[in-house]
Amino acid sequence: MSLKSKDLLGMQHLTFEEINSVITSAKSFMEIATRPIKKVPVLRGKTVANLFFEPSTRTRISFELAARRLSADVINIPALISSAASGETLTDMAKTIEAMTVDFIVVRHSMAGAPHQLARQIKSSVINAGDGSHEHPTQALVDLYTTKEKKGYIEGLRVAIIGDILHSRSAKSNIWGLKTMGADVVLIGPRTLIPPGVERLGVDISFSMEEGLEGVDVVILSRVEMTEENRALLPSLREYSRFYCLTEERLAYAKKDVLVMHSGSMNRGVEISPQVADGAYSVIIEQVTNGVAVNMAVLYLLAGGKK
Amino acid sequence: MSLKSKDLLGMQHLTFEEINSVITSAKSFMEIATRPIKKVPVLRGKTVANLFFEPSTRTRISFELAARRLSADVINIPALISSAASGETLTDMAKTIEAMTVDFIVVRHSMAGAPHQLARQIKSSVINAGDGSHEHPTQALVDLYTTKEKKGYIEGLRVAIIGDILHSRSAKSNIWGLKTMGADVVLIGPRTLIPPGVERLGVDISFSMEEGLEGVDVVILSRVEMTEENRALLPSLREYSRFYCLTEERLAYAKKDVLVMHSGSMNRGVEISPQVADGAYSVIIEQVTNGVAVNMAVLYLLAGGKK
Amino acid sequence: MSLKSKDLLGMQHLTFEEINSVITSAKSFMEIATRPIKKVPVLRGKTVANLFFEPSTRTRISFELAARRLSADVINIPALISSAASGETLTDMAKTIEAMTVDFIVVRHSMAGAPHQLARQIKSSVINAGDGSHEHPTQALVDLYTTKEKKGYIEGLRVAIIGDILHSRSAKSNIWGLKTMGADVVLIGPRTLIPPGVERLGVDISFSMEEGLEGVDVVILSRVEMTEENRALLPSLREYSRFYCLTEERLAYAKKDVLVMHSGSMNRGVEISPQVADGAYSVIIEQVTNGVAVNMAVLYLLAGGKK
Repeated sequence: MSLKSKDLLGMQHLTFEEINSVITSAKSFMEIATRPIKKVPVLRGKTVANLFFEPSTRTRISFELAARRLSADVINIPALISSAASGETLTDMAKTIEAMTVDFIVVRHSMAGAPHQLARQIKSSVINAGDGSHEHPTQALVDLYTTKEKKGYIEGLRVAIIGDILHSRSAKSNIWGLKTMGADVVLIGPRTLIPPGVERLGVDISFSMEEGLEGVDVVILSRVEMTEENRALLPSLREYSRFYCLTEERLAYAKKDVLVMHSGSMNRGVEISPQVADGAYSVIIEQVTNGVAVNMAVLYLLAGGKK
Repeated sequence: MSLKSKDLLGMQHLTFEEINSVITSAKSFMEIATRPIKKVPVLRGKTVANLFFEPSTRTRISFELAARRLSADVINIPALISSAASGETLTDMAKTIEAMTVDFIVVRHSMAGAPHQLARQIKSSVINAGDGSHEHPTQALVDLYTTKEKKGYIEGLRVAIIGDILHSRSAKSNIWGLKTMGADVVLIGPRTLIPPGVERLGVDISFSMEEGLEGVDVVILSRVEMTEENRALLPSLREYSRFYCLTEERLAYAKKDVLVMHSGSMNRGVEISPQVADGAYSVIIEQVTNGVAVNMAVLYLLAGGKK
Repeated sequence: MSLKSKDLLGMQHLTFEEINSVITSAKSFMEIATRPIKKVPVLRGKTVANLFFEPSTRTRISFELAARRLSADVINIPALISSAASGETLTDMAKTIEAMTVDFIVVRHSMAGAPHQLARQIKSSVINAGDGSHEHPTQALVDLYTTKEKKGYIEGLRVAIIGDILHSRSAKSNIWGLKTMGADVVLIGPRTLIPPGVERLGVDISFSMEEGLEGVDVVILSRVEMTEENRALLPSLREYSRFYCLTEERLAYAKKDVLVMHSGSMNRGVEISPQVADGAYSVIIEQVTNGVAVNMAVLYLLAGGKK
């Protein structure tokens, strides 16, 4: 059981077997979270650096906890501030961190491809914790793990990904991962927020919640925000919410045992109604718990998969 | 020896026995600070999250050291920045942290009652590290511990709390704690900074240092600042200092063996003269050392009080 | 093997024997970085506080890793923000940290002499991680260690320190350290960036790269920036670079087996050409690796030098 690359950069090139390795390994790490002493010595003496060029409490903490529970040392580098101050290039900074014999660099960067550039230049394992609107592979692995746990299988399930697909890196990673695992994918959102040509990846597209949710087993939402880029693409969050907020009424179009997931911090009343967020179909809180186990699995498998 | 609630939210509802438990337990943890290896495995594999919506180096570090010396893992969440960035609700953020199987959340928030709201919604233990101008229970426990250590007893002592009682959360917590332990309390400060109706709690009030300090065993100061709220209540810090700065001259009105405490970072020359701050009666530095032990005791007792 | 003082404040007063102790000890710690489990229990139960009044990712992480690999607990205090917020004096802040029984305080401050002031007032060991443009002793120790490793000896070597000597604390520390170890030192840079009277320390001065680099064994660069202070001293970075950028052409004036070092984050194209930075003579990346070992040695020796 292992990953072929020294890095985890995206879901696009991960195989069926590799994704299954992560899911199987995460399941065994889930058990640790239930113990009174939530610690195993798997990565004792190894160092994990969190190098975040964009702020992210949730992902940073999840990796920090995963690393600590594997007994690794963790260094947090809020690079947003420090690198701006020093004006060092990304490559020089990465080589500096590598030179301190850091084993894993978890990197988030606003530029698509930044983690890939790092990975080519250093021997440490690089984990992409989100690069621009490109990929966020560990979030997709969490969603796949949660689906597998809840449904027992992934192949043949119909999964709706709703929202700002154009800018959501989690959505992109989920498309690659779900297709590799044999799921049917439908993207739902306003025409301006669906990436042009995405149907070539073998996904369906719908501009209507009622139509798109028909017969769906799993719904994956992500945060919809009025960013600078979205000002030209979205009239207002209120307008978005009127057509695309996941309400109980709309959810009724999906299968009876539909799962509702959210990959990030919720914007209640925008992309999800409070009733759905806290409702019976929601596994949003379980995703967070699963996230730590999935991150542990990724660190463990990149380290060679030996306990 | 234990605390009845899963949380430590305030001194108002803590019993005589519970306060004594913390004091007794802190005494045994004090001994650890004197060892060459300042670590015990009491909370090994447990996780403590510091969730601070207001900056506080002193309190954050004290809890971080307390947790580490009990062998717990610590996650720092400078929520001021991150939560503002993500716009997540306090409840969603807390549920996210809880879902990562964090055992303790130490929370500071500018809104009175925020920790209480959290505590109702999650199973993790919540420790109030200061909510608005409402309560700061661990600071009061430090002051009680220090008093007990120095005087041998608390019951019957006369304690003056001086300064901006209206906005000081430590002062409020000290009032509750001291009354429960049987001390006499006198509040001293300008009329505008004494909460109206506070005498109903069974405390004396004085607007004069000379009068108020008469026969006092313990003096507790807190930082006086020209905040936005105080602009309408206080002519100037210079004016405040003229009447209420604790000088050696004024301290002479208190008992010969008076103790001087300060619950926070000092504003020398405003609420305390440098001579008093560094003088023989001052136990301000000991309060800081005691603070780590008290925080260890609180974590230990909330965890069930079993070593 | 030990250091005479409880603190490491500068290279100026370090003896030949003390510098050799650090170099010998660092060599034994280097070996740990190559082990699968990079941890020794030398400082178990001790606490190291990083108190940085100026941002510094590189130095902070290097000390954090050094401390963790010695099994110490580490507390990061981004004092820039927090102390500004609280308005506490440096002394009160340091006494507070000491009172929490912190064993080591690693301090960076914009004011020359700030660490010395702290060191006199507290019993904890103070390590100067850079004070104004005064000293940065651990950087000089890294450069000395790297020189010794590569050349086998230091005495009699000719070392060029190039750039903004006036404002570089590393340059100052290197001058003291190199002279103590018996090296010849030549300072190269524009007249406005050489401290007046520095020749009294027994160093040569040159305003020309071609002349100054003649017969040099080691080159030490530091970052050249257009700071506020430099606006009156330096026409532009482009102008600086035209005369003082270390290019392959200029490096040819030095000895065939010259070493190129850089003490800080590089400003490629300003003080160093990319070809030299990534070239065969460059030991810039090794300096970073050595830095962690040197910091481990310093912590270890200040703690008494007993494993």
